[in-house]
Amino acid sequence: MRLSRYFLPVLRDVPKEAEIVSHRLMLRAGMIRQQASGLYSWLPLGYKVLMKVQRIIEEEQNRSGAIELLMPTIQSADLWRESGRYDAYGKEMLRIEDRHEREFLYGPTNEEMITDIFRTYVKSYKDLPLNLYHIQWKFRDEVRPRFGTMRSREFLMKDAYSFDLDKDSAVKAYERMFVAYLRTYARMGLTAIPMRADTGPIGGDLSHEWIILAETGESQVFCHRDLLEKPIPPKNVDFRGDLKPIFNDWTSLYAATEEMVDHAEYEAAVPEDKRVSARGIEVGHIFYFGTKYSEPMKASVTGNDGKETVVHMGSYGIGLTRVVPAIIEASHDENGIVWPVSVAPFEAVLINLKAGDADTDAACDKLYGELTAAGLDMLYDDRDQPAGSKFATADLVGIPYQIILGPRGLKTGEVEIKHRKTGERETLPLANVVERVRSLIEPQRMNDI
Amino acid sequence: MRLSRYFLPVLRDVPKEAEIVSHRLMLRAGMIRQQASGLYSWLPLGYKVLMKVQRIIEEEQNRSGAIELLMPTIQSADLWRESGRYDAYGKEMLRIEDRHEREFLYGPTNEEMITDIFRTYVKSYKDLPLNLYHIQWKFRDEVRPRFGTMRSREFLMKDAYSFDLDKDSAVKAYERMFVAYLRTYARMGLTAIPMRADTGPIGGDLSHEWIILAETGESQVFCHRDLLEKPIPPKNVDFRGDLKPIFNDWTSLYAATEEMVDHAEYEAAVPEDKRVSARGIEVGHIFYFGTKYSEPMKASVTGNDGKETVVHMGSYGIGLTRVVPAIIEASHDENGIVWPVSVAPFEAVLINLKAGDADTDAACDKLYGELTAAGLDMLYDDRDQPAGSKFATADLVGIPYQIILGPRGLKTGEVEIKHRKTGERETLPLANVVERVRSLIEPQRMNDI
Repeated sequence: MRLSRYFLPVLRDVPKEAEIVSHRLMLRAGMIRQQASGLYSWLPLGYKVLMKVQRIIEEEQNRSGAIELLMPTIQSADLWRESGRYDAYGKEMLRIEDRHEREFLYGPTNEEMITDIFRTYVKSYKDLPLNLYHIQWKFRDEVRPRFGTMRSREFLMKDAYSFDLDKDSAVKAYERMFVAYLRTYARMGLTAIPMRADTGPIGGDLSHEWIILAETGESQVFCHRDLLEKPIPPKNVDFRGDLKPIFNDWTSLYAATEEMVDHAEYEAAVPEDKRVSARGIEVGHIFYFGTKYSEPMKASVTGNDGKETVVHMGSYGIGLTRVVPAIIEASHDENGIVWPVSVAPFEAVLINLKAGDADTDAACDKLYGELTAAGLDMLYDDRDQPAGSKFATADLVGIPYQIILGPRGLKTGEVEIKHRKTGERETLPLANVVERVRSLIEPQRMNDI
Repeated sequence: MRLSRYFLPVLRDVPKEAEIVSHRLMLRAGMIRQQASGLYSWLPLGYKVLMKVQRIIEEEQNRSGAIELLMPTIQSADLWRESGRYDAYGKEMLRIEDRHEREFLYGPTNEEMITDIFRTYVKSYKDLPLNLYHIQWKFRDEVRPRFGTMRSREFLMKDAYSFDLDKDSAVKAYERMFVAYLRTYARMGLTAIPMRADTGPIGGDLSHEWIILAETGESQVFCHRDLLEKPIPPKNVDFRGDLKPIFNDWTSLYAATEEMVDHAEYEAAVPEDKRVSARGIEVGHIFYFGTKYSEPMKASVTGNDGKETVVHMGSYGIGLTRVVPAIIEASHDENGIVWPVSVAPFEAVLINLKAGDADTDAACDKLYGELTAAGLDMLYDDRDQPAGSKFATADLVGIPYQIILGPRGLKTGEVEIKHRKTGERETLPLANVVERVRSLIEPQRMNDI
């Protein structure tokens, strides 16, 4: 993408309303714009990151056997009366009346609707296990939305729902999602730790929050240091096999949020030098809640023995519009964002140091064509702007590699590459640039971990 | 995808509520489910088609130079007061009050919001031309929603908005979208004809509706027969060059909807044997409307001469949730849907005629692996079901090619391929199947037209 033809409205000034660094950087880097309190547009650069996050989630959900569909944002109030949550949900639910004065709501979550879909079509134990998910906009009318898209009112969530014949099978479904989540966050460059959590208004008796550590985290967490460096289950992990050993391996090490921590237990379980007490940001939440919705909503199947059995369910959420700022909280420096390659809006930026100079333009245009042809997701800063401003923009928006070419380099046939994360610079012959950049980027795409 | 692990709830019975064939077939093929009047879930098969349609639209929008972002579904009423449309819009607008009793609405379109984004960031003529688009759910509270997703209340639309310094440039932006639309529909296997149209509540003085011909069409259209077979501008068409010759070539032939037709003009312009009068379905609408929104909302830039100039705008819509049924209206037979390859939920289905038989299972599993490895988007009917039921399902859901293998074929080493569209069958050696199917499918993917 040529920057001269792109829409990247970076801001020079630090917006006053932004309290946390991810919010400030997302505004400054032209990723988002607030349209009203808690309502954001995702500008092109931000949207591109959001979609890269979405692709990773979809790939890992699909790999685990979950199936994607899409439910509408607007739901009937009657459906929520069946579960008893319509009255229970309170003011966070955005309630709507249509032109015929029928009651609707903007879905804050989808347990009721997916249970309704399930009971309509699935009649036999033979159709289980089943895990259906969607990635759809939700709305929670927070009293005081803040922190940008970290706590916005309209937000994008992946929510999966598992259906099983009994608790044992449902726990297996839970373990599949547990492993999928380990892989999902790792592929985004995040160290996310599953922590025992309170089940809250969703209900149920087995639940983990997925937490990344960041100084700006909203809550205190307590865990075993080894969790921070545990290897992730590989791409070819058998999702139809026994995942309990992986689940047990991860959950045997102590990890809990402040709502759940038992300090005596924590200190007994974790040697002093292994204790990590830090701030964390929740980036996902998974629940097994048994028959909480299937019972009142009569979602049952005929079992092997011919008897009707109410199904056991779980739900599994990831807030995409929350993951993006969480990545920034975990990865930035004083000059701006430092994107992991797998979710970077562009993998590298080619900086033309003298746009308008015919020789430099020709060399840069040619190199840009070659880098793009090599399958690299490229930004090309071809604007007629001072070099300093181009470097500042590249640093701010956090592209992992800067490829710098100007008249001087052209004379010696050399190009400079700057690594955004480390600040390291290398100079190399023009002819070697494409291969070098590709060799830097490909392993970091995390497609094959 | 193994059908035994998929969620494809096909219906045997013809749903009574469905008045048109696409609605019936989408329900029967397990593509959609009505959640409330005018509100639909897209079940996995339907969602997959919807996303293939979305990818084609995105590729062609990007190719033409438009840039993707994403605006929220909920908009502030104040924004719509600026353009005067808040009061003018009537009951089709879903109006919402939040917990603080502030007025919002579920966006039916986005002229106001994109103009607001534009005026916030763009200050100079140097940043023009600019065309921003998004693909987002919209809501129009129709009195009587019907025809399934063809006229639903919550619907998915691609809407692009162009910004230019003057009318001449704005017309060039219009021509770029015109060419992008020609390519977009062709890639979906549709013959869509641009017709002079009324500009309606969007306003403006240049507008085309994009119409596909189908007996069930909602309106009468009149056009020159040559439009039905006109070649489409190729992939490498220069969107930065002069597109007026293409635009003139298409618009010089008469084509108009019943609201716009002048019968005397029609008969004068089109020889009798070239006249086509038929029913049509609108699948897109493009507008140039000048300063209708930029004037009241003060969206201006500083021109070359240092003076403030109000920008000229256009908007360009495609209803994705309408395009899917429109494709079905244009392509089905008495047994079900006949998908064009480029938007088919799966490109081919492998039918195991004797699931449970060890040899047949082994041969089918192997072939499925090979077809998938060859990059084909495969469904694998591995269920323990009678052959007749499998054929009926494959026909109903409309997969372009059926690859049929059972114990008898296994003995002679032969596989049957059925072409869904023509009914043609061919028998060939097992070893040649992958290459044959690939050679059938690849040219129909339309990635390179």
